[in-house]
Formats: sequence, C-alpha cells, structure tokens
Amino acid sequence: MGEADQAVGARRARGGGGAARRASRSAVSFESAQYITRNIPNLDILHDEALEIIETNAETVLEEIGVNFPENPGALARWRDAGADVQGDRVHIPRGLARQLIATAPGQFTQIARNRARDVEIGGRNLVFAPVYGPPFVGTFREGRRYATMADFETFVKLGYMSPWLHHSGGTVCEPTDIPVNKRHLDMLLAHMTLSDKPYMGSVTEPSRAADSIEMSKILFGADVVDTTCVMTSLININSPLTFDSIMMGALEEYAAAGQASIISPFIVGGAMAPVSVMGTLTQVMAEGLAGVAYSQLVRAGSPIIFGAFVTSIDMNSGAPTFGTPEASQITYGAGQIARRLGLPYRSAGAFNGSKMPDAQAAYETANSLNSGLLSGVNFMLHACGWLEGGLVASPEKFVMDADQLGVLHKLAAGIETDKNAQAMDAIREVGPGGHYLGCAHTQANYEAAFWRSKVLDYKPYETWAEEGSRSTFELASLKVERMLADYQQPALDPAINEALHAYVARKKASMPDAFH
Amino acid sequence: MGEADQAVGARRARGGGGAARRASRSAVSFESAQYITRNIPNLDILHDEALEIIETNAETVLEEIGVNFPENPGALARWRDAGADVQGDRVHIPRGLARQLIATAPGQFTQIARNRARDVEIGGRNLVFAPVYGPPFVGTFREGRRYATMADFETFVKLGYMSPWLHHSGGTVCEPTDIPVNKRHLDMLLAHMTLSDKPYMGSVTEPSRAADSIEMSKILFGADVVDTTCVMTSLININSPLTFDSIMMGALEEYAAAGQASIISPFIVGGAMAPVSVMGTLTQVMAEGLAGVAYSQLVRAGSPIIFGAFVTSIDMNSGAPTFGTPEASQITYGAGQIARRLGLPYRSAGAFNGSKMPDAQAAYETANSLNSGLLSGVNFMLHACGWLEGGLVASPEKFVMDADQLGVLHKLAAGIETDKNAQAMDAIREVGPGGHYLGCAHTQANYEAAFWRSKVLDYKPYETWAEEGSRSTFELASLKVERMLADYQQPALDPAINEALHAYVARKKASMPDAFH
Repeated sequence: MGEADQAVGARRARGGGGAARRASRSAVSFESAQYITRNIPNLDILHDEALEIIETNAETVLEEIGVNFPENPGALARWRDAGADVQGDRVHIPRGLARQLIATAPGQFTQIARNRARDVEIGGRNLVFAPVYGPPFVGTFREGRRYATMADFETFVKLGYMSPWLHHSGGTVCEPTDIPVNKRHLDMLLAHMTLSDKPYMGSVTEPSRAADSIEMSKILFGADVVDTTCVMTSLININSPLTFDSIMMGALEEYAAAGQASIISPFIVGGAMAPVSVMGTLTQVMAEGLAGVAYSQLVRAGSPIIFGAFVTSIDMNSGAPTFGTPEASQITYGAGQIARRLGLPYRSAGAFNGSKMPDAQAAYETANSLNSGLLSGVNFMLHACGWLEGGLVASPEKFVMDADQLGVLHKLAAGIETDKNAQAMDAIREVGPGGHYLGCAHTQANYEAAFWRSKVLDYKPYETWAEEGSRSTFELASLKVERMLADYQQPALDPAINEALHAYVARKKASMPDAFH
Repeated sequence: MGEADQAVGARRARGGGGAARRASRSAVSFESAQYITRNIPNLDILHDEALEIIETNAETVLEEIGVNFPENPGALARWRDAGADVQGDRVHIPRGLARQLIATAPGQFTQIARNRARDVEIGGRNLVFAPVYGPPFVGTFREGRRYATMADFETFVKLGYMSPWLHHSGGTVCEPTDIPVNKRHLDMLLAHMTLSDKPYMGSVTEPSRAADSIEMSKILFGADVVDTTCVMTSLININSPLTFDSIMMGALEEYAAAGQASIISPFIVGGAMAPVSVMGTLTQVMAEGLAGVAYSQLVRAGSPIIFGAFVTSIDMNSGAPTFGTPEASQITYGAGQIARRLGLPYRSAGAFNGSKMPDAQAAYETANSLNSGLLSGVNFMLHACGWLEGGLVASPEKFVMDADQLGVLHKLAAGIETDKNAQAMDAIREVGPGGHYLGCAHTQANYEAAFWRSKVLDYKPYETWAEEGSRSTFELASLKVERMLADYQQPALDPAINEALHAYVARKKASMPDAFH
C-alpha cells in the first residue's frame, strides 16, 4: 500500500479539511465514458423453439436431477420452506418454482460509485466493463511472468481508474500473493476505495470477508447509503455441474441480505464441467442460473442479482481450456437470450484468450470474445481487459490494449446517426464526382467526432515505425503503461474517511495471525 | 514459375496421358471446406426508415448530381439509350431507372472451379472466402518487408490451395513486381490455373488483359463451358466519389459481355472519398453500386455481378487509413442491408488492419472486420487472409493465421444443433451434480467434432511454450508456412491443357515488348 499511504500521508501532513478541499479542487480528473447504452440490436442465434427446449430441459434437470447445496443446512431449510424436495444435500426444485422465485429479482439496478458521475446501470440495454479478475500471476513486457503482488494490484487499479472506456474498478484484478490470504481482501478493498473512484466488487472468499467488504463500504459511503443502495457487485461462482459451494453461498447470503449485488455464474470448461454440446451446456447454465438466482431471492426477495455464464471450450488433444472459439461465442449468444427470457441482467464474455503473451493469438481470441459479448446483450462484462493465458496471468500491457479496444465497442454500440447532418447530402453535392471530401464544409464541421481513434495502436507510416524500432503493440503498450503510471493522480477523498478506512484495515489485520493458505 | 514448370515437366517426362492419369490417382488432395451457408441470422443495425432515407438520397444523388463515365463514349451511349440524361461525361440517372435495370442481375450465381467439388455459390446465405488482393510488398518473419515477386505470388497460391477454410484462390494475391506490368496477368493466371484447383479471379488492369483471362479460361475449361458458365469473378473498383474509370469499365464490359462475374466496389477511405458520416457514406456507396450494377446489366442483362463496399475510416491526425474500426463495421453492416434490399450478392470486409507486422494490432483489427463480415451477410469476402499494413503488404504468416481464423467463422455460422444428441440430457443425468463430463458416454461419442481447434495458435502449457522459445504467433506461423510449402503437391491437370496454357502465355509474351509501367 506504499504509494497510497504516502499520498494520504502527504495530504494529511498539510493539515486537515482545508488542505483536503484544496487537494480536491486541484485534483486531475481523468475522463471516463459512461457505461454503454446500446442503440443496436442483439444477435439472437437461437430460434424460440430451441429456447423452449432449453427451458423445458433445464426445469427437468432441476426437478429430476436436482442441485447440491453441501454443508449448508440453512440453505436446505430455505429450499424446503419454499417447497423444494430436499434429499440429503440434494435439492429437487419442482418445475416452475425457480422461475416463480426469480420474479422478484430486478431486471436492472444501479450500482453507485463514490464519484456519483461514475454510477453504473446494470441490466436493460446497458453494458458495463470491469477488468480482469483472479490471476495469480502478472506478466509484463520488461519482466515476463511472475507471481503477482500488492504493488501490481495497485498498478491495475490505477490503470483502471485512468482508462476512459472502463466503467468499473473490478475486484481481484490480480492475487496479491505477498499479502496473507486472510488479510488480502482488506488491502484490495482499500486500494479500490482510495486509488480509484469507480465502482468496485466485494470479497467472496469467506462470508466474514464479505462482511468486511460491507463494513468498509459503510465507512466509504455511510451506513445509511449502504443499507438502501447497491454499492458492490461481487462474483459468486457455481461449482459446475450443479453444485453450490457453501463458502460461495455464504458470501452470497451476506451480500443478498445486505441488498448488495452478486453475479451468480457457472464456471464451465465445456466437456469437463458441462456437456460437449452447446445445447447441453446452455441447458445446464440455465438450470444453474435459475437455481442460484432463485436462492438469492430466498435469502432476500428483491436483492440485485446478475445471471452469469463463464464458459470456455476445451482442446480435446491437450485438455487445455480454449478461448475466443466459435462454441464459446454460440454459448455467449444463447445465454444472452436465456437471460433476456428470464428478465435478468446478464454477465458474460471478456478479453479471453489462451495466449502466453499479448500477441496476435491473444488479440484474435480477445476480439472474438469482445465482439460476441457486445452483440449478445451482455450487461456486465468482467475480464473486459487485462486477461492473459486463460486467466492465469494479468498483464498491464494487455490491460491498456484491451481497454483501448473497449472504445471500439462504445462507438459501434452507439449505432448510426441518421439526422440531416449525418445524411451529408450537402457534402455529396459540394464535392461531386471526382472530388475530394477532406476540405469540404461537412468534413470540417464533423471530423473531430467522426472516427474513433485508438490511443495505443500505431497509425504511423512504415518508415517512421521502422525508424522508431519496429515496435510491436506489446512494446508500445508497455510504454503507454509507463506514461499512465507517471501521470497518475489519486482522486480526492475526505481525509476522515480515508483515516477510518485505514484504521479499520489496521484493526482487522491486528486481530488475527497471518495465514498463507 | 520455377516449381510449377518443374512439376509439370516431370509429369510430362514420364509420358503422356497414362502418366497423367497415374499422377491424378496418386495426387494428394488437400481437403477444403465448402463455402459457408449461414445458419445464423444477420445483424441488421439500420431501421427500415434509415434504409428508406438512404435509398431516397441515393436516387437523388444519381438523378441530380449524377455519375461520371469519362473517356467512354460507348458507356455514355448505352446510358443515353437507357433513358439517362447525359451531359458531357456526366450521367444523370432518373429516379428509379437504376433500380429497374438491376432487376436482371442474379441474386445468386455459381462460379465453377476446375475441381468441381470446389465450385462456389455466391449470394443468398452463402459466404465465400478469397485471399488478399493487390499488395506491392511482401513481409515475412525471416526477411521483413520488400517488393513482392512472382515467387511470392506462387507461395500465396500454394498456401491458398492448402488452406482448408479458404474457398477461392483469389486474383492478384501480391503484385509480382519482377514481371513486366504488361505480362504479369499471364503468369498470375497460369499460377492460379496450374498450382491450385480452386476458383480464381481475372485481370482487370486493361480490357485486353480481361480478354486474355477469358481466353486462358477457355483453354482450361473449354470454350463451350466458359460461354455458358461463370468461371471468373473479377474486381472492378469504382473511383469514388461517383466516377467510373474507363479502364475498369473496359474490363467490366469484357467480363459482362462474356457472362463472367464482376465485383463492382467503391474504394473509399471515409472522409476522403466519401463523407465522414456513416449515413453519408452509405448513401454514396448505394448510389455508386446502383449505377455500376445497372451499367453491367446494360452491357449484358443477366450477367452475374456483386455489389461491393470497400470502406475504411481515416485517422484525422495523420491522414492514415484505419481498419477494424467501429465506423467501418457500421458501414459493413449497413451496406449488407442495402445489398439485401437490392437482392444482390454482397462483397465486403476482410482481414483488414493497419499494422506493420502480424501482432496484436493486426489481429484485433482483423478479428473486428472478420466478425462484422460474417454477421453483416457478406457473400464474397476478398482479402479474407494475408492482408497487412493497410493492404500495402501481403504476409505469408498473416495468411495462415487469418486462414485459420476463418475456421472460427465456419463453425460459428453453422449455428447450434438442437437435436436430442445435442440436448445431452443423458449426459447431464449420467454425470449429476459434482461429477465430471470428460469420461461420460456423450463426451466420448461427440468430442471429436465438438470443438473447433486452431492449427496455428498455441494451446500448450506455459512451461512447454517457454522451453520451446517463447514464440509469438508470428513466429509459429512462419514455421507453419515452411511446413506447408514443404508438403505442397500440385493438383493434377491434363498435360495437354497445361501445355496449351503455357503455349498461350509464351505466345502472348513474345508478341509485345516488356513494359514496366
């Protein structure tokens, strides 16, 4: 937490509220785009009959096969009370019950940020981008691949704060392996809360850590705000097939009870945790999503919840998970239709790839996934930037490369302007056959906003590029990362809040011995 | 032509028809997928009202502004006879006339290949992939960037022949700058005809070269076949805005008169050759397409023709054309809707990018364009592999990287199987909550065809990849190129035909002095 502490210390040393107000006034504000509200249609690749088959089969799975809620007597009791047939850990959900229970889940909800200009609307035609989540390794142009640390974590939070097309600070942007496992969540939350002003995710690795996330959020936003408003969206994985782990469910219960949002997501490598077929996988995804969302509503009816699908295919030769594949795209499209059928916000897709470096493989696979994510109606895209090597590695270079490509999706999603100015008939008349548009009045009036422009990719002529060292996108992105970190400035935060957050973290850390597993 | 000559010579030396039949029986046949027939919907991003505005405005452009057919009195006479108002070179086409003339153009047609298993259907729900067209430079992993030669040209034809997801051998896969300009087309056609058995494109750089393309095709297929069947699809660029160059039109006239197909394509860098707005560009594209297609039908009603759109945006800072951008995607989607409104086959998209090497930039931009091409209903995708640096460079490595990604599009376009086997309910029952699908009966029965698998990208674990030298996709692709060229075997061809083709080329080359511009 070195840099964050120093910055706060420096501000505090200059003395109290007056300095804070001055710091606030002089702080650089990094511009960020609002979340996407699509003005283009979704691509529905399944016919209605196929969707009906999937729903019928998913209900059969829930009723006849059932789902497991192991080591969770409270959950079993809730299901029994709701009318399910509970046998041991196995919950058989009668046809129609889950569908009935999910009716209280909101189709769209607001997650607020401490900078309220950065609130996000999750659901409907909206799309919110959040960065990579979970990698134990970090890989950089200069250093290669190594275990991730808290300093790396802070780097990613800073890059996310400064990335104009990224709406959300995310959660475990990498695993800070130099911090004890039982204390990591405290430092991670503190980083999101103090180094960025974008919305963030809470800890899910133990119910008590979810409780810490809620407590720290109360310090940041005020308890009254947290009691009535969604300030966190957290990631609850289903242990596919059809198993709801008690630790993850414990975190879900904390969040749902507090009115905080969760993403309930099957984690599926196709052919391993689900059938090798797209229809079979969609059936299981729907059954798991129905059960998970219904359970969230049993904990607290009306609590915000996202229907998720994390699905990759597998290379049957090597057993490696594969990304950006056609089957993954088909599942992403199909699961989007299922989410809309259920009226639930949808999480899927991301900057997925299996490459070991941010090369062409990484970019082909990533672009395939990002494009299918936009067109499948995803509402919350976790892993939208920074993901490498099947999620084992977080890469700062890939982070800024992907975050730049998110700008492509913003412009594409905005749709096509059709007004008189866009029709440009005066320009076509002015220029005429054989003419040139560069100098015409319409071009002069419109060129600045006309074309999306990358801030990472190289548009220079070959000769200039060769003179500058024939640098790949990977190398150019490493320079961009260095420039961004040099330009970073911490967003202003009330010193009393900052102090209280640090005190909470210090107290909690002192209350228990370090644990590294 | 070294390798091709040697192979033919060797076969001929073994003596006559019997040897040819033996060669034919023993020849390795490289498997190729059939052209795509989509089983997924197109993405229509324009509302009907927007399409109506575009059509109304395009008709206004044709009537009030008009189009130029310079240095082409024959074309002006045809237009005058058809009822257009001709003023100098300017043709004002009354509202509705072009739309009426294009009614005779087929909505779908067959281009045959000398290997009839490789015929392609152009139009409808089909998608045909053809390689990069036109680069004066070649860029390779070992050599970097240099002027392209005939040996490079042969390399690309061989790679195209061996690429299983590529349906078409293309045309000017690179410019063989070591061959005189006025004789290049002969060597290029000979390479396509003898080194591959996939369909190919004809020369358009002069009407006489189009005539040579037809004559050589008659030798290859028989005159009777060429008189009644489409054996070539050639690329006719419109000199945007609104100008129809006499050399290109001369080639179009040759091909249309012979019943051979052309792609009539505006070549547009947005903001330079068309307005900076998407609506304005689509209006001009539609006006130009209407005029060009109508003209092809004036030359010969019923001749096969493709409505094309080659559109890039521009970086207003540097003036560089940019690729894989959101505006280019929007135009690709919109022009697809226009083509379907007109009932014409549609050409657009490709492996477009502005990168100087096959790195992440190249792949992001390429994947953006390939995906929009698939989903916009493109029927003929030129430049589907091998394109680099804004089309200045053809790259063998990029060729095999892109050609591999075309497999992703095949699988995605096939749609989702919904039968009982695909529903996989038995598998979900067999495995149950907490189980594993790898060993189950459904997986064993289906795994081989379940997931598309790259033949270029690296699916190995990090450790293996690092031990093997931490190779990028670019480097891995260079090894793949070497392996393919080592494995190449020429498809069998009747020695009499082969001899006649060589004799035609030799006679034509001897009939004129070399010209290098």
